[in-house]
Amino acid sequence: MSTLTLHHLEYSQSFRILWLLEELGVDYSLKLYDRDPQSRLAPADYKAMSPTGTAPFITDGELTLAETSAIVDYILDKHDAQQRLRPPAGHPSRLRYLFWLHASQGSMMPLLLMDSVMRMGKQHELLQTLQGVFLGPRMDALLQQAEQDLARTAWLAGDDLTAADIVMVYGMEGARARGYITEEHTGCCAWLDRVHALPSFQSAQKKDDRPSIVFA
Amino acid sequence: MSTLTLHHLEYSQSFRILWLLEELGVDYSLKLYDRDPQSRLAPADYKAMSPTGTAPFITDGELTLAETSAIVDYILDKHDAQQRLRPPAGHPSRLRYLFWLHASQGSMMPLLLMDSVMRMGKQHELLQTLQGVFLGPRMDALLQQAEQDLARTAWLAGDDLTAADIVMVYGMEGARARGYITEEHTGCCAWLDRVHALPSFQSAQKKDDRPSIVFA
Repeated sequence: MSTLTLHHLEYSQSFRILWLLEELGVDYSLKLYDRDPQSRLAPADYKAMSPTGTAPFITDGELTLAETSAIVDYILDKHDAQQRLRPPAGHPSRLRYLFWLHASQGSMMPLLLMDSVMRMGKQHELLQTLQGVFLGPRMDALLQQAEQDLARTAWLAGDDLTAADIVMVYGMEGARARGYITEEHTGCCAWLDRVHALPSFQSAQKKDDRPSIVFA
Repeated sequence: MSTLTLHHLEYSQSFRILWLLEELGVDYSLKLYDRDPQSRLAPADYKAMSPTGTAPFITDGELTLAETSAIVDYILDKHDAQQRLRPPAGHPSRLRYLFWLHASQGSMMPLLLMDSVMRMGKQHELLQTLQGVFLGPRMDALLQQAEQDLARTAWLAGDDLTAADIVMVYGMEGARARGYITEEHTGCCAWLDRVHALPSFQSAQKKDDRPSIVFA
């Protein structure tokens, strides 16, 4: 019996680990945690258990691991021997796989985090300037790159679903919820539709039991 | 002859690619770009060439690639056949390698980006609250984890230098410059000393030709 447990915080970056586990058909346990209704933060017991105080984290026997992409690579090490979701060095999809896997947490999520700060401090002139000069152009460049790649193939790295799609979904949903992705981003919208139609995504959604993966 | 070119923007995340190339002894070309003295942003020609408008990016024949960790993995694919800097699945350092590699761009850099925004909008009460509730505890948790790991071994993933150390250096220097890392973080300070003593780091610094890798 597997000892792998996903500690899943509602409306958080951990949904992607849930989807990954469903896509791989891994035997695992799921523990669900609600956010504090007032502060919207993770409950105290969750923060105490997570090595970085953040979601997601997993436990597996003696091991506890935080950080989305580290968890993704750990799970792929153990449960994707054929490298179906992680194109290896030399694979034609390798380059785009690397770009999108790392762009998710390295660019998209920081921009959305900054967007949240902007929204809180929008009266402040300097922050507005920063949004115009810094955030906007970077988000546009990323979405333009996604449109270009998704005009060529169905998935971000190539013709097949990879872990890069799984890791990118949270940023893409967030970017649409905040109006960065519009109807004009036809590639991104079609990609989101394709994601939502996957049986593994749907069974993850059933277990998550929330109307969407980001706060609407 | 190698066609690999690093397009290095001064005082930017691209220093780490320079260090990586020196550490691997790769044959490459270096192009240096200064920031605009007024705006401190990358010059227009740099932004136009970089796929995401950001530093670093590399070119290699027909290929252009942005995003620090994607570039790191691309270079390791080609120039680290023995996996010296990237412990493979099953290696005792694998887990900590994955954590720190991904925590750099997934946690440390977003926190420092948010810190920059905080500093600009510090009059704003909501931002101060966010710093106390969100940024501070997360940075503390990361540094505590680093102290714990560096009390056990010389490098972040284990007894040997890995690409996780190389990717983490920018966040660590930034965290020290902004006062998050103090003398009390003995593990982090000793790690930074160890980094600075490496011949590959020193030759990268010589080519960079700046007093430090982050704005002091």
